[in-house]
Amino acid sequence: MALTLTPVQGLPIFKQGDNLSATIFILLAENGIILQDGDILVIAQKIVSKVEGRFVNLESVRPSSLALAYQPIVQKDPRLIELILRESNSVLRIRQGVIIVEHKMGFICANAGIDHSNVTNPSDEGEYVLLLPENPDVSAQHIRKELHENCAKSIGILIIDSHGRTWRNGTVGVAIGVSGLPALTDLRGTKDLFGRVLQITQVATADELAAAASLVMGQAGEGTPVIHVRGFPYPLRESGLSELLRPKTQDLFR
Amino acid sequence: MALTLTPVQGLPIFKQGDNLSATIFILLAENGIILQDGDILVIAQKIVSKVEGRFVNLESVRPSSLALAYQPIVQKDPRLIELILRESNSVLRIRQGVIIVEHKMGFICANAGIDHSNVTNPSDEGEYVLLLPENPDVSAQHIRKELHENCAKSIGILIIDSHGRTWRNGTVGVAIGVSGLPALTDLRGTKDLFGRVLQITQVATADELAAAASLVMGQAGEGTPVIHVRGFPYPLRESGLSELLRPKTQDLFR
Repeated sequence: MALTLTPVQGLPIFKQGDNLSATIFILLAENGIILQDGDILVIAQKIVSKVEGRFVNLESVRPSSLALAYQPIVQKDPRLIELILRESNSVLRIRQGVIIVEHKMGFICANAGIDHSNVTNPSDEGEYVLLLPENPDVSAQHIRKELHENCAKSIGILIIDSHGRTWRNGTVGVAIGVSGLPALTDLRGTKDLFGRVLQITQVATADELAAAASLVMGQAGEGTPVIHVRGFPYPLRESGLSELLRPKTQDLFR
Repeated sequence: MALTLTPVQGLPIFKQGDNLSATIFILLAENGIILQDGDILVIAQKIVSKVEGRFVNLESVRPSSLALAYQPIVQKDPRLIELILRESNSVLRIRQGVIIVEHKMGFICANAGIDHSNVTNPSDEGEYVLLLPENPDVSAQHIRKELHENCAKSIGILIIDSHGRTWRNGTVGVAIGVSGLPALTDLRGTKDLFGRVLQITQVATADELAAAASLVMGQAGEGTPVIHVRGFPYPLRESGLSELLRPKTQDLFR
């Protein structure tokens, strides 16, 4: 069966308090898409953060002494550095333009996923940045529940961001919030074509779908931040981000 | 426009010397797929390696003293360890079951991408493993040229493998050979919706497509190792794996 990823056209620029699931539900219909059991909607974190009001006015941030100490190396606004530190459990590396952190949610990323682009001033002229959703798994569960109330279909919701990689150029889409689809698919015990047990034991199915959807979201990002997916080749099930986080005890590169 | 990934059904189990592009061309027709300008075929490295005869009989390998020294830690067959070392520029980490290396081709991966599953004995009863293609970019160029001679369409060819990630569980598909599609897409200078220059500057478009196709190839891997892609959202162009390899000077985690 083919996997088809279709951008949902016509989404507005979201602001705090907007009803994301209701907007998506209406626009799916306008795009001629009727949800079926097994479909997945992939949503860019940015619009989830916006409706959840994760804006921070940089004028409200007072940098700590640590943020000020990092500033000459990182060469970013020390208020932004302060926010990056507040959003993180620990710092892995710093260099000009980037702080690699373990985010409070447990994954490793650059600059705690704090976004500076496509962030409007929601209510005034201040300079705003946008934090990641407080708990993207919960955000995904919430959107899934509301859509289910509208359509009574078993669907999955995946919230994604773009991350750099350790040794490869360019960003790829990754899962940061998962509800109703397998984040990780465990193949342990599966036999290959010749009856030998497979070497690869776990596939990051939600990350693979995140990358696929990110590709379709395209350049501007906020242009088409919701992607409808049909033909996901694994059974839907309850899941969450934690499946994708490698335990520190197995980490070889920290 | 939607992105559609369709597994090409009916591929045989390949052996050294088989004509991969001719087989794919015939099977596309049998699958009802007529290539169009802008289409991409994503091919699992394993079948490319097989037709290129990248089998190695472990009985023919004599482990070096270094391979024997690694064996108590890695706990793999020392002949396999020897092959991993021969295929690599350097070793980053070793632990039970895995050697993280810089492959001769320049990317970081586990066990030099040497494959033990779905490897049949092509001509005898020996225990065989399968190395990566000698030069996957060249393999992709070759397949693309042969298909172009058959159909006169401008298509892209992407050869992929599955890699683990530093801090996340599970493997994802990644590009190891690229011809005719942008490995990396540079957005520097692109403005966001509000006229601010985008923070994210480079998207690993070939890796995002590799992950998408890997998802569709599914569990058994060799079941559907060729995926037809329509609706890739970027213009096709000449490219290669090197675009995706982060220079060592920018490497923070070696």
